[in-house]
Amino acid sequence: MLFDLFRSFGVNLDLALEAREIVRGETGQEIPGVRVDRERFEHGEVTIVHIVEKAAETIMGKPVGTYITIEAPVLRENHPAAHHEVSQILARQLERFVAHIPEYGNILLVGLGNWRATPDALGPKVIEMSLVTRHLYNYAPQELKGGMRSVSALAPGVLGLTGIETAEIIKGVVEKIRPELIIAIDSLAARSVTRICTTIQIADTGISPGSGIGNRRAGINRESMGVPVIAIGVPTVVHAAVISQDTINAYLEQLQNTPVNTGFNPALARRAIEQVLEPFGGNLTVTPKEIDALIATTAKVIAGGISLALHPGLTEDDYSYYLH
Amino acid sequence: MLFDLFRSFGVNLDLALEAREIVRGETGQEIPGVRVDRERFEHGEVTIVHIVEKAAETIMGKPVGTYITIEAPVLRENHPAAHHEVSQILARQLERFVAHIPEYGNILLVGLGNWRATPDALGPKVIEMSLVTRHLYNYAPQELKGGMRSVSALAPGVLGLTGIETAEIIKGVVEKIRPELIIAIDSLAARSVTRICTTIQIADTGISPGSGIGNRRAGINRESMGVPVIAIGVPTVVHAAVISQDTINAYLEQLQNTPVNTGFNPALARRAIEQVLEPFGGNLTVTPKEIDALIATTAKVIAGGISLALHPGLTEDDYSYYLH
Amino acid sequence: MLFDLFRSFGVNLDLALEAREIVRGETGQEIPGVRVDRERFEHGEVTIVHIVEKAAETIMGKPVGTYITIEAPVLRENHPAAHHEVSQILARQLERFVAHIPEYGNILLVGLGNWRATPDALGPKVIEMSLVTRHLYNYAPQELKGGMRSVSALAPGVLGLTGIETAEIIKGVVEKIRPELIIAIDSLAARSVTRICTTIQIADTGISPGSGIGNRRAGINRESMGVPVIAIGVPTVVHAAVISQDTINAYLEQLQNTPVNTGFNPALARRAIEQVLEPFGGNLTVTPKEIDALIATTAKVIAGGISLALHPGLTEDDYSYYLH
Amino acid sequence: MLFDLFRSFGVNLDLALEAREIVRGETGQEIPGVRVDRERFEHGEVTIVHIVEKAAETIMGKPVGTYITIEAPVLRENHPAAHHEVSQILARQLERFVAHIPEYGNILLVGLGNWRATPDALGPKVIEMSLVTRHLYNYAPQELKGGMRSVSALAPGVLGLTGIETAEIIKGVVEKIRPELIIAIDSLAARSVTRICTTIQIADTGISPGSGIGNRRAGINRESMGVPVIAIGVPTVVHAAVISQDTINAYLEQLQNTPVNTGFNPALARRAIEQVLEPFGGNLTVTPKEIDALIATTAKVIAGGISLALHPGLTEDDYSYYLH
Repeated sequence: MLFDLFRSFGVNLDLALEAREIVRGETGQEIPGVRVDRERFEHGEVTIVHIVEKAAETIMGKPVGTYITIEAPVLRENHPAAHHEVSQILARQLERFVAHIPEYGNILLVGLGNWRATPDALGPKVIEMSLVTRHLYNYAPQELKGGMRSVSALAPGVLGLTGIETAEIIKGVVEKIRPELIIAIDSLAARSVTRICTTIQIADTGISPGSGIGNRRAGINRESMGVPVIAIGVPTVVHAAVISQDTINAYLEQLQNTPVNTGFNPALARRAIEQVLEPFGGNLTVTPKEIDALIATTAKVIAGGISLALHPGLTEDDYSYYLH
Repeated sequence: MLFDLFRSFGVNLDLALEAREIVRGETGQEIPGVRVDRERFEHGEVTIVHIVEKAAETIMGKPVGTYITIEAPVLRENHPAAHHEVSQILARQLERFVAHIPEYGNILLVGLGNWRATPDALGPKVIEMSLVTRHLYNYAPQELKGGMRSVSALAPGVLGLTGIETAEIIKGVVEKIRPELIIAIDSLAARSVTRICTTIQIADTGISPGSGIGNRRAGINRESMGVPVIAIGVPTVVHAAVISQDTINAYLEQLQNTPVNTGFNPALARRAIEQVLEPFGGNLTVTPKEIDALIATTAKVIAGGISLALHPGLTEDDYSYYLH
Repeated sequence: MLFDLFRSFGVNLDLALEAREIVRGETGQEIPGVRVDRERFEHGEVTIVHIVEKAAETIMGKPVGTYITIEAPVLRENHPAAHHEVSQILARQLERFVAHIPEYGNILLVGLGNWRATPDALGPKVIEMSLVTRHLYNYAPQELKGGMRSVSALAPGVLGLTGIETAEIIKGVVEKIRPELIIAIDSLAARSVTRICTTIQIADTGISPGSGIGNRRAGINRESMGVPVIAIGVPTVVHAAVISQDTINAYLEQLQNTPVNTGFNPALARRAIEQVLEPFGGNLTVTPKEIDALIATTAKVIAGGISLALHPGLTEDDYSYYLH
Repeated sequence: MLFDLFRSFGVNLDLALEAREIVRGETGQEIPGVRVDRERFEHGEVTIVHIVEKAAETIMGKPVGTYITIEAPVLRENHPAAHHEVSQILARQLERFVAHIPEYGNILLVGLGNWRATPDALGPKVIEMSLVTRHLYNYAPQELKGGMRSVSALAPGVLGLTGIETAEIIKGVVEKIRPELIIAIDSLAARSVTRICTTIQIADTGISPGSGIGNRRAGINRESMGVPVIAIGVPTVVHAAVISQDTINAYLEQLQNTPVNTGFNPALARRAIEQVLEPFGGNLTVTPKEIDALIATTAKVIAGGISLALHPGLTEDDYSYYLH
């Protein structure tokens, strides 16, 4: 029901972890066709949601697949060593998807989003910090050390900048260079401000249509691209409708301890939210003021994790040299 | 009372027009010591709030002075000719503050804000688009046409980038180059999302401490700078606490038509809002997704208006050439 | 002979006008299979070199086709009205290539070059200033006025940034969106510093392999792309080897008026130039210090000219609005 | 004599090492009042030129002071570990100038140059990568670890962007925040292309008027600023006139082995060079095509060296976190 309320405001649930929480919150029990694993590490937690049965797809609003979530609130603190650990956790989780790919088999990194809008610029920023080697493989192999993979990278921009669907650009390039795997990095919307730049989701189902803060129109997944797509997503915004919704709930909760206790009325809530947010419809997002610094930190952690996973022969020094 | 609620979340009322509306809303009558003029133009409205008496300062939370507000919802539409008109309105309003300054008397433009965070980048963007001539006056006067003023420009960055208070940097430069006037451009926070990139405030009181979306710590005004300061501000965000607040109100309003009618309880509201926004305190802001495009349009309108006002001898062609 | 000397240093002759001058300089007569038209305008000159016969291809080092050169030294002066005229001349010359394309037929703009290296950033800068409409045609036709064409735009970056050949990226996108025409904008190298940011070449043969200051490896032309390609090129650098060569010639010329007159010795010249430029081989380029301002001006003139040619229904006001 | 020839083309000798070589080349003996120390390290060499006597100032064209030159051709190679070593050498050389400054004593970093012109953007780029802490000292000391100094940073832009002399902006800020020391980073011009992005000069005399590739008009030194100024400079260009000059010399050298041997005629050379470079006067510079990548690497090495020197308590992990 809440689910529907958000959808009516164009709010998508990008994180499988949150979708599961909401569904379970409504039903009070484990979702059939869904299996969950957990792992603790020093500065956070990894939760793996396996959507294993077709039946669970509709309930969860997500395709069958594996959704790995790294929750690390420390990403918002001044704690370099901990960030380093998060990079390594990310690398270890990514490795399972790339281990089987031979060194010469190309991996295409795709940074989704709009480099002109800070909260949507995570993808392009990761691309800028990534270590691109495909041309060295093809033209100057002697410049490469052992243990490096062939990596190419693309920040295709957004429809408003190019006039071309992001998926069309990627598909066109994929058909030319035929990578073994695509890793797509995207900014997501979360249900809670606590998740902003503290949660990283890795999904082997790629990018679903309508997800991401720019609401990427078309899917970028194995079906549309013809090769496996790993999506790395980080929530960088919360939709304003979610904040509005949560505030009504919190207020009504407070009211429960008073004589004027009253239940939640979804229809009234929708009208109230519409009234407040109307001028920009579902297009209002909430971000912390320091979003530029948070995005910079997160981009570094992700680019570092990707490089560690793809180039096992790389030292830290090498990494900082190759990228610019 | 609402006033206090916002302040407890670090929410400042940057627009005099809104401060007046709220104060009047509470009292139901005109504020003593405040005078208001209005003027309609084709695509919007100019409201001039004169705070004339010291007594009104405390009530309004703004120093004695003139606050000109241009409201032009058309700025968010695809209507080039109308934007042009807004530039001209802005120019006409600015002229009253610059008319007495001789051509050789320098005017310093200051673009406040953080160029790395889209909604806070308006000031630096206007500087990039501004026509700087002071060095031509001093070193190559023959390159200048008649009817151009001596203009210098500065985007001092924010404390987190420089380690230096913005006001200190400006004051230091002012003491060296001794301009006749400072025009400071800043991003503001509004009470309503309808104002985002549709309202322009010109204030002859400069920048008050704590205003702007970055909460500029120190004031930039005649008192601190020793020369008159005209502030041009545009709301680019709304504080999340305001959205939360408004949603509670809207919901309670909806409830009035039901049997469970209940009055607004500020203490409960504060606790509810705190609960939802707590992880980032007062630092969560709401912006439309297309904020990058809106900022680009607004920066153009403002830079254009400033150039028209400062360089009466300038044709449009000239303008597009000189700036880069 | 000179030709060969330059080639040994990786110097390509990007301008047909210069190739013709050099060839004619050596032979002293008109080149068979080449026809030349000229047209004066107030602030410059248009020269159209038609390479009409296959035989002339080898002599000129350029494929059969039409090479329009606009020479406008005024582009380096402070003269807005004249720049405007150059935009209009460019538009008029481009129109002949686009007149037959229906409004709904898409035109793809491609900005070649490296946005991180100022003299190579012309192409990406023109893209930033271009008016992209394809998505409006497809999704929101009501936002478009009459007399506008469907335009898409791409700045594919360079091999070092993406690991992918520029031509591969473009070809991939072309096969997806099937434009009627490609207009590719590139930075070129010239034989003379006087041409830097004062000469614009429009060629209906597209981009030849090895041309441009980045020495784009593969051609971007009708043959490789399957659709006609119009190349707009502006010299932004001169190879250092050319400067070296010219200085030796100028010095020997000066010597002619002295008793120690001596002829030019190409073998010695090559060795001398190699000795001076050796550490960076053919990769040293000469640019004026103010190249950033020159590139900004030229990008504006070219983006303006393209928009005038592609969107005949567009007013100046419209143009400045749509682009950001 | 050569000296004069260059000066007539506005060519300044920014490196003390080169000035000494040229002077010694002409006289064939050590320069009175100059003392030289040398130190080898694995990937390069440190040469310290002490100009100790007033008399040597005029001969060298540089004020009395210490000029430390790190020559490390490896900076142009793909060798991360070696770059790391260069950062450490730089840190060790800088330490002698900062060792006596207490932790709370502020150090102001100034990045000179134009961020829009790649070869002149080194200074601003170093600032972007620098670790700014002054505000943490003043406002949130608990966020700082031991062994960190108070650092502020400024990229004042160039005259063409601000209309204000760079030295005026710096002086204004210095008078406000009263740092103990200024470290100014600048792009220089060299006499030889081999020095581009391979040589780092540290001078305790600050920046002399007319030096740097932008020919900074006014000096930035203890005299003008009232506090000591350490200048870190890296050649990123060679003046085109130098290349022209060198080519004539190299050609004449080649001629010596032929019957038409002829001596160098400075007057003819000047006329020849003028003829070739005339359209842009002394404003033509020579850079390698890959200058953007070289500047990125050098900026990283310098920002790293500065942070190591100023914040002895900082680990590498810390460093990568604090900066963004």
